Amino acid sequence: MTPETARPEGVRQGPQLTATPDNAGVDAAVAAARRVVAALLHAGGNSAAEMQDVAARLNAVADHLEGHAPPIADRMVDMWAGEGVTRHDPVTGPENAIAPPLTLTGRDDGAIEGTTTLGLPYQGPPGFVHGGISALLLDHTLGVANHWAGPSGMTAQLTLRYHRTTPLFQPLTVTGRQVAVDGRKIRAVGTIAADGEVRVSAEGLFIAKQLARPR
Amino acid sequence: MTPETARPEGVRQGPQLTATPDNAGVDAAVAAARRVVAALLHAGGNSAAEMQDVAARLNAVADHLEGHAPPIADRMVDMWAGEGVTRHDPVTGPENAIAPPLTLTGRDDGAIEGTTTLGLPYQGPPGFVHGGISALLLDHTLGVANHWAGPSGMTAQLTLRYHRTTPLFQPLTVTGRQVAVDGRKIRAVGTIAADGEVRVSAEGLFIAKQLARPR
Repeated sequence: MTPETARPEGVRQGPQLTATPDNAGVDAAVAAARRVVAALLHAGGNSAAEMQDVAARLNAVADHLEGHAPPIADRMVDMWAGEGVTRHDPVTGPENAIAPPLTLTGRDDGAIEGTTTLGLPYQGPPGFVHGGISALLLDHTLGVANHWAGPSGMTAQLTLRYHRTTPLFQPLTVTGRQVAVDGRKIRAVGTIAADGEVRVSAEGLFIAKQLARPR
Repeated sequence: MTPETARPEGVRQGPQLTATPDNAGVDAAVAAARRVVAALLHAGGNSAAEMQDVAARLNAVADHLEGHAPPIADRMVDMWAGEGVTRHDPVTGPENAIAPPLTLTGRDDGAIEGTTTLGLPYQGPPGFVHGGISALLLDHTLGVANHWAGPSGMTAQLTLRYHRTTPLFQPLTVTGRQVAVDGRKIRAVGTIAADGEVRVSAEGLFIAKQLARPR
């Protein structure tokens, strides 16, 4: 089965649509936090790792960061200004340790795509990606696909179909494409594929509307 | 608008269906990691927080944990044994820093419910929960609702409807209920509500099937 948004021969990759992680500053700290999140799951209740000490070290880092955080109202303005928009979301954001992160690029046929490999934090059934994590990735990808193609907006309805299990620890190709615009109604579809087979497909209805940015 | 799975008068809370976080061991370390994940988003690119040093401290914790982690095959057997099943998933797992975590309890009318408050790591539009995060919470909650009611299985199809925005930093009530079983086909519905209003509703089709646990 070929993903319906697989790249046809001759179609070129276009610009990157999501933020590029830096190897410095907050991005490096967030990348390290991702390592901690995964390593905690790999270590489990292992007493040899002296979890009390690990907790103390992590709480000390949290205390430090909380002590240096600006007031939330100021931070909201900053995080939603200019290029900041794609830096903190839970799918593509290099500043968000929950995000794998997925990097998405536009294609010159109007679709978008990205590749990611998911580990233990994203597990549902033994050894496979959680169905809700696939939904998270696809909801976001469809939104970015709309942005790449033209009018974009907020999700009104999203339907996910789970065709077969999605493996952990293997590269996944995530694609999205806007398929119709009718007044304020926007439709987009997308897939998650592994080994060239579609594992999950999605179709979404979006309404052209943007919430005001904080300022 | 009343959530369709809101608790009718006189209906009592039943047993907790998800794991209880401990204030010790790996759970305490994971709770501290959650603080770090959120605090990194609150601090942002704040140079006063000396992110290079924060990255070094977090990488040192990750090095320590990775150095004490058992082989992945052994860990998979352990994490899927007995009571371990609900301890590591990305929605309710006290061992998974991605999970808010959501604690779900059974009700004597056959539905389940839980309350959680989501912060910056779960943000979609400015100040509101990401639509894909709502999908993640509901997919998992419908699965647990099936388990509470009777036959359970894997998600085959999930439809989310976004009725209005879901706020960050406010208590959200998440509910789920199995509504039909027809051979191997299982149907469940659920909602996320805030201030007594349904924000997102979901209906899912599940197929009675369990993947083998690693051993």
